Amino acid sequence: MENIEETRLGDPIRCDLYHLTQARTIYEEGDHERQTVHDYFFRKIPWGSYLLVAGLENVLKHLEAFHFIEEDISYIQQIDERAKDDYLNYLRNLKFTGDVYAIPEGCLAFPREPVIRVEGPWLQTWIIESAILKAMNYSSLVATKASRIVYAAQGRPVADFGLRRSPGDGAAVQSVRSAYIGGFFATSNVRAAKNLGIQPTGTMSHESVQAYYEIYGSEIEAFRIFAKHNPENCILLIDTISTEEGAKNMLIIAKEQEGIGYKVKAVRLDSGDLPGLAKKVRAMDKPGRLFLGIMASSDLDEYKILQYLGEGAPFTGFGIGTKLTAPEPGALGGVYKLAAIEVDGELRPTIKLSEEVEKTTLPGKKTVWRQFTPDGFCKGDVIALTDEPSPNYTECFVPVLYKVMNKGKIIGKFPSLQEIQNAAKENLRMLPDEYRRITNPVPYPVRLSEKLQNLQKDLIKRFRR
Amino acid sequence: MENIEETRLGDPIRCDLYHLTQARTIYEEGDHERQTVHDYFFRKIPWGSYLLVAGLENVLKHLEAFHFIEEDISYIQQIDERAKDDYLNYLRNLKFTGDVYAIPEGCLAFPREPVIRVEGPWLQTWIIESAILKAMNYSSLVATKASRIVYAAQGRPVADFGLRRSPGDGAAVQSVRSAYIGGFFATSNVRAAKNLGIQPTGTMSHESVQAYYEIYGSEIEAFRIFAKHNPENCILLIDTISTEEGAKNMLIIAKEQEGIGYKVKAVRLDSGDLPGLAKKVRAMDKPGRLFLGIMASSDLDEYKILQYLGEGAPFTGFGIGTKLTAPEPGALGGVYKLAAIEVDGELRPTIKLSEEVEKTTLPGKKTVWRQFTPDGFCKGDVIALTDEPSPNYTECFVPVLYKVMNKGKIIGKFPSLQEIQNAAKENLRMLPDEYRRITNPVPYPVRLSEKLQNLQKDLIKRFRR
Repeated sequence: MENIEETRLGDPIRCDLYHLTQARTIYEEGDHERQTVHDYFFRKIPWGSYLLVAGLENVLKHLEAFHFIEEDISYIQQIDERAKDDYLNYLRNLKFTGDVYAIPEGCLAFPREPVIRVEGPWLQTWIIESAILKAMNYSSLVATKASRIVYAAQGRPVADFGLRRSPGDGAAVQSVRSAYIGGFFATSNVRAAKNLGIQPTGTMSHESVQAYYEIYGSEIEAFRIFAKHNPENCILLIDTISTEEGAKNMLIIAKEQEGIGYKVKAVRLDSGDLPGLAKKVRAMDKPGRLFLGIMASSDLDEYKILQYLGEGAPFTGFGIGTKLTAPEPGALGGVYKLAAIEVDGELRPTIKLSEEVEKTTLPGKKTVWRQFTPDGFCKGDVIALTDEPSPNYTECFVPVLYKVMNKGKIIGKFPSLQEIQNAAKENLRMLPDEYRRITNPVPYPVRLSEKLQNLQKDLIKRFRR
Repeated sequence: MENIEETRLGDPIRCDLYHLTQARTIYEEGDHERQTVHDYFFRKIPWGSYLLVAGLENVLKHLEAFHFIEEDISYIQQIDERAKDDYLNYLRNLKFTGDVYAIPEGCLAFPREPVIRVEGPWLQTWIIESAILKAMNYSSLVATKASRIVYAAQGRPVADFGLRRSPGDGAAVQSVRSAYIGGFFATSNVRAAKNLGIQPTGTMSHESVQAYYEIYGSEIEAFRIFAKHNPENCILLIDTISTEEGAKNMLIIAKEQEGIGYKVKAVRLDSGDLPGLAKKVRAMDKPGRLFLGIMASSDLDEYKILQYLGEGAPFTGFGIGTKLTAPEPGALGGVYKLAAIEVDGELRPTIKLSEEVEKTTLPGKKTVWRQFTPDGFCKGDVIALTDEPSPNYTECFVPVLYKVMNKGKIIGKFPSLQEIQNAAKENLRMLPDEYRRITNPVPYPVRLSEKLQNLQKDLIKRFRR
């Protein structure tokens, strides 16, 4: 195997072995065509009150392209001596033919809400579990983190600098896509910028200061060389030797650039007491006279940004790396659970019990309604069964899940990345501040319809018997 | 762009924009052929005292295949109006022609040691920075984590269950490769198992218990169906409804299986008070009479495993997911820094200063010597300049870095994954217990040669002047 990461769109063996084991069992038992309903949802969010949904396009493309190739079939034959020809032939012809409903990318979701609802024959809807989890968990986690960082930056532009800490080439692009959905304006990652059609951005490197210092014995010369070759986009990195010295050297270059009709766009601080240094550097010059902005990077996240701005640090922009592409906690614990299965020709709601009632799943075919205030702010959500009437009689309730796939075919065109970013911005604007707050946000109210509550209670009772 | 993750081996624009900006600057200044030395190293490890190196094969394949295609050149033209034809033609013909020295995969590295040393013309050695960081940081982090989990498991087999929390398809394979290097015996990830040639593994799903309970009204029936179709590999998941009830049901099936000449291989516990439940389940049966093992999963890491085994829980194996593929902290802060650059025809050592002396880089062309005790245990490392004589006169010192690439060509054949796992096992065996300990390990002694210390001091003095 030359490229160990080799895979393809719709690759069915991007799954766990237990998917194949159970698929064969289901097939041999003749249960593969039983209708089912599965939900992708999450129980809690690592930070804040909401999840900014991302990753759906990836999921839908996978489902539409889902098919086994002969090489996969041979591999299954090789690892599973119980796989008979009949079953293997079934796999050879298997397509995903289900219906999918989802909360679109750039929209908000809250704990326990079905973010994706998959309806279709059991074997098909089961075998896709890990592909859905893998695509949604990381992308949504990063989009959510990005939106929090953008919120903390209070209008200042935020760029992604996370390539070097990205876990793999795929993640390096998916994380940039998610960051953009969350409101970042650009990325340092050239491959991602090209593939996604977004703006690449960058500053100067420590290395060039270090090297030109070695060659010419002066930091000024390093700055001069950078300014000469990048006059329109001159962001000087002033902390390589000493930030205060670097700031003085930068001012010399800024004057020189002014003399030839250019402006130093910004300075970048990447180490030390960032807010203190920013104030000192700003005090050396009237804002905008010789240099325009002060940009910060260095292991930043929403908490540090809030703290620095709270201290009055005059930062005008931020570059975010590690804490975006390798956030902590490192995983959203999204799960994909069976909510109903056909028994005796009828779809029967089912639950997965847990010792904690909160962790017991919600049964049946469900949707989510979002309530808005008269002036257009989110007020609370209701998770209800799909066969309940809309709660739309006295107040403004809007459905949050849309049908996005019909019998295995994607419905309509995907929104552009820009459209998703715009939608996210608008959806976040409609979420009142108490839910967006970086620390200790109020939990967003999500209630279950009475019918759903009763259904869950009945099923728990049945199991406990 | 149909597939936004699209990239290829040797793709040079898997870089940050500042790599291109600086590459053009270096080229225009006529500095692109200056010889340089760069080091990939890390300053600290998130847990424990050592790093288990992984990711090198990926790096070397990237360097050997490194080249721009016309599409990349057009993109650079589009985003950088200062890129002239002369420079673009230079990029068109650019190959990586440097020499690379490295600590091989499966070997141990310690803070500040050059894990990879790259020698070659400045532009080439600069532009590959992010590719090296991205490949090494995640892979080595996961391999290290895996080795700690295996250590905590004290000989019990450990399998990777992390696909669903993997950040992207590439990471989903790289993490399995790293886990295998760290001593895991198998993975649930079928695609990774196929691509890497390692054993896929799996148990039963909660979903099948949930569904067959719904269909037949009994957990026993769910177990019976699984056992019927997987008699040779029957690991029953007994916590779906109630672990104690599940254990009783499992024993009924175990007896039935015994009657037809099969044995239940193990039970798996995935929720609740794992060590307490394990003891109860074990007490229901003499070890190995009806069922052989008790396997645990559920957000496990080395700390939990140690704790459970310390409490005497009779686990015989573990499945590890989230904490392996999305570990916390989520990133190894490995860096790639200039250590020397040609000035006036001579390679001149250089440092990157930091307010903390510990973070100031080590200058010059360096290597690492590892000292062994007479009975073959690691005793301590020395980082020295390559032009110093081997410290090999009174005690056993062995060089740790090897030449792995000559003028852009990979030297020799890559070891197989099995060979790397074996090497890791042997290297870890030679690391005394006080350094391997899960909590509060003793820091492994790494000293600098006197010549290197003096060189660093001299350079700091020069900068501080």
